[in-house]
Parts: sequence; structure tokens; C-alpha cells
Amino acid sequence: MTGAPATAPAAVVLLSGGMDSATVLALAREQGLRCYALSLDYGQRHLAELDAARRVAAALGAAGHEIVRLDLGRFGGSALTDRAIAVPTSGIRQGIPCTYVPARNTVMLSLALSWAETLGARHLFYGANAVDYSGYPDCRPDYVAAFERMANLATKSAIEGQTIRLHAPIIALSKADIIRTGLRLGVDYAMTVSCYQADAQGRACGRCDACRIRAQGFADAGVPDTTRYRRSVEP
Amino acid sequence: MTGAPATAPAAVVLLSGGMDSATVLALAREQGLRCYALSLDYGQRHLAELDAARRVAAALGAAGHEIVRLDLGRFGGSALTDRAIAVPTSGIRQGIPCTYVPARNTVMLSLALSWAETLGARHLFYGANAVDYSGYPDCRPDYVAAFERMANLATKSAIEGQTIRLHAPIIALSKADIIRTGLRLGVDYAMTVSCYQADAQGRACGRCDACRIRAQGFADAGVPDTTRYRRSVEP
Repeated sequence: MTGAPATAPAAVVLLSGGMDSATVLALAREQGLRCYALSLDYGQRHLAELDAARRVAAALGAAGHEIVRLDLGRFGGSALTDRAIAVPTSGIRQGIPCTYVPARNTVMLSLALSWAETLGARHLFYGANAVDYSGYPDCRPDYVAAFERMANLATKSAIEGQTIRLHAPIIALSKADIIRTGLRLGVDYAMTVSCYQADAQGRACGRCDACRIRAQGFADAGVPDTTRYRRSVEP
Repeated sequence: MTGAPATAPAAVVLLSGGMDSATVLALAREQGLRCYALSLDYGQRHLAELDAARRVAAALGAAGHEIVRLDLGRFGGSALTDRAIAVPTSGIRQGIPCTYVPARNTVMLSLALSWAETLGARHLFYGANAVDYSGYPDCRPDYVAAFERMANLATKSAIEGQTIRLHAPIIALSKADIIRTGLRLGVDYAMTVSCYQADAQGRACGRCDACRIRAQGFADAGVPDTTRYRRSVEP
């Protein structure tokens, strides 16, 4: 897919390598924005996610892609960065899961804000989803609004009248709707990795919460699940 | 100076190595908090500032000190990280200076929030100053309030009822008042480095905005300037 022309307004899009942020990049691209993808190498358990982000950024015509290295694991506290905490695989539970990385999305959005200011970009895109990730505090509309408000007080650009918009275009979509949207926009989900413990080739475990939510999304959307698994999905 | 007991409430204090954040650490310590100092190695021009942060954290009895490496310079856009932009030395001007690092304080506060959540700390301390740094958007009370509000929607701890407080105790103080406060609390300002272009030994240029503001602060407070200069201060 080709990118937007150099004269198009710029946007910074958080890109994890998963299906949600890939869909968000495709949506930003559809709006004619010149998209700069930002990924964080934050000490997550596997790097297959970042390989996926690279493939997705290229496939969806991003004007640039930065992977910022930041060791959030040194603070500990999450199963995604702390090897002393196991990723749960026995099914989805209520409440905030131990895969929550403390303030990770706030850190990523702050980095996006920093890059946006340098690029002169007014638009930030964030794949928060309040439906499937209701347990994550920073995936709710109130949080998105509060971050946008803070951003508009934080930056030189905002002071100079260039309002920052934080877009969370899939926040109210079900996983099935996200998949349908992405397929309409030409996203190849086989490129994306959602699994919390994918192997080095990016193949999914099929057992963690992220895998279960993703598989259910394909089932609900009534389309073939193109995820590459290293074993079959457990019931 | 000894630290607070292990049972004291914890605080994360942003510590740059300059005089403002050293004073803030002393103020947090005075309140009986167990202080965890957080510094950012963000690609600033010199590392003398980080050496100063290490000395100050130890001298003021911090319970811990983390220096997080994060290359904000890759985004460019500031004289403090981009060697293609010169640090101005011809005197203080109106407006937002080119030494402003895009969204740096927001990035640092987000990291502080992440660490605070892991530590179970409810208190963040930030050396924003609206008097001498009126040109920096993220040093104003409105910004501090907006960040605190966002933080209370962002985190698992906040959802679970542990309100985050973002303290900016020197926001309304003049530089002279900051110096008087720190001296009362035993801060040794000779340990701190404010200069935007200090040499490897931490000696100040005496010519950049930060040096000029600092020297004026000592003069206004009517106390000897203990700053280590590599040349005398220009009028």
C-alpha cells in the first residue's frame, strides 16, 4: 500500500504489532494522513511483536517507523515484562489482568506526543479498546479524553494554537468489528501478532487471554482465522 | 542525610541533577516520605547532570535511584538533544526557548507514574517552576492538574482507590526562595548542575539561560553562589 503524499497532514500512530493497532494504522491511512508509526521495545517477553510491527508499517505505507527502546521491565510488576510472573493461560477472568504493564500506554502516548511535536503532527492514533480490554484502565474513553486535555497543556505546539487530537477509533468496536474493518481496508492479519507469549517466529500459543480474544473475534466475524498458531486453540 | 523508614509512604521524585529538583527531593524527604529518585538519560548534551543526580540522591537519603535511558534525541527538535541547534548564550528572551525538549516532562512524569504503580507509591514530585520557566508549557499549574487527573484515570492503583497526587511544591517560588528553602533543608547546591552545557566535570558555562537564572537566584537570595564555573559569569 502506498503512503499519503508529503503534503498530507501528519499523524503519529502507536503500533504494537497486534491486530488492533494495525487496524488503527489502516484507518488513519484511510483518512489521508501521513502516518508515522511508533513502537516501543519495552522489555516485553518476545520480540516477534516488533517484527510484526515492522511488517505492518511497511505493508500499510507508513511514512516512518521508530522503535524506541525503553526498559520498563526494570520497574517490574507485569507478567509481560517480569519473568517471575507467569502469563495466565487458563481463561479470561474479571478485573485488571497481571499482563497489565504499569502506565505503559501513558508512556507510549507521551513518546508519541514528543515525536508529534517534532514532526509538527496534530494527530495521535491509539488502538485502545474498551470492549475486549475493559480490565485495562487506560483503554477507557475517560482516560483518552484526559490524556488529550493534558497533551494540549503540555506542548509548545498546543500553546501556539496547534490543537492535539488523540484519536481512539476502535475504542467502542468489538473484536469482530475491528477484524471486519481491517479486512475492508486490506489489513493482512496473518502479519500481526497478538499472543502474549508468541515464539520467535511469531507463532501464537493459542492459550493466553490475547489469543482467546483474537480467536473469538475471527469466529464472531465469521471469517477464517489467519493467525499462525504453534498448536491448535484449546476450547 | 538518612532516608525515611521502610514503613513510610513512598514517593517518586523526578531528579534532574539541577537545583530545583534537588530542592524538591529535600522537601519530599522533609515530609517523611520514602523517596525514589528517577532520572532520565534522554540524550542530553552532557552527562554531568546525571552524575549530579547520583550525588544528590545519595546525599539526600533517597531509598532508590533509577536512571532510565531513553533516546529522545532521535526525534530531534531541541538544542538540548540536537547538536545541530546551538544553545543560546546571549541572554534570556521571551517565549518558549529552543532548549525546550518536546514533551520531555510528560515522558518523565509518565515513567514516574509507571514506577510509582510498581512501588505502590501514591506521591509523585516534580520540580516545575512557573516563575523562572514561564516559557515552558509543562511548568504551569494547569498542566500539573491535567497530568494528575489523567494519572488518576490511567492506572490500576487509581482504579482500586489509591489516588495519585502530583506535587509541584516549588511551582510558585522564585529562584531565590528555592535556594533559601534548600539551604534550610541542607541541600548542598555545589553538588547540582543547572548549566545546559556543563563540562565533563560538571562545571558551568555561566552564559546560558539556566546559568543566568541560577546566578541571579543566588544574588537575589543574598547568599554566596556555590556553583562551580569554568569561567566567570558574564554580565
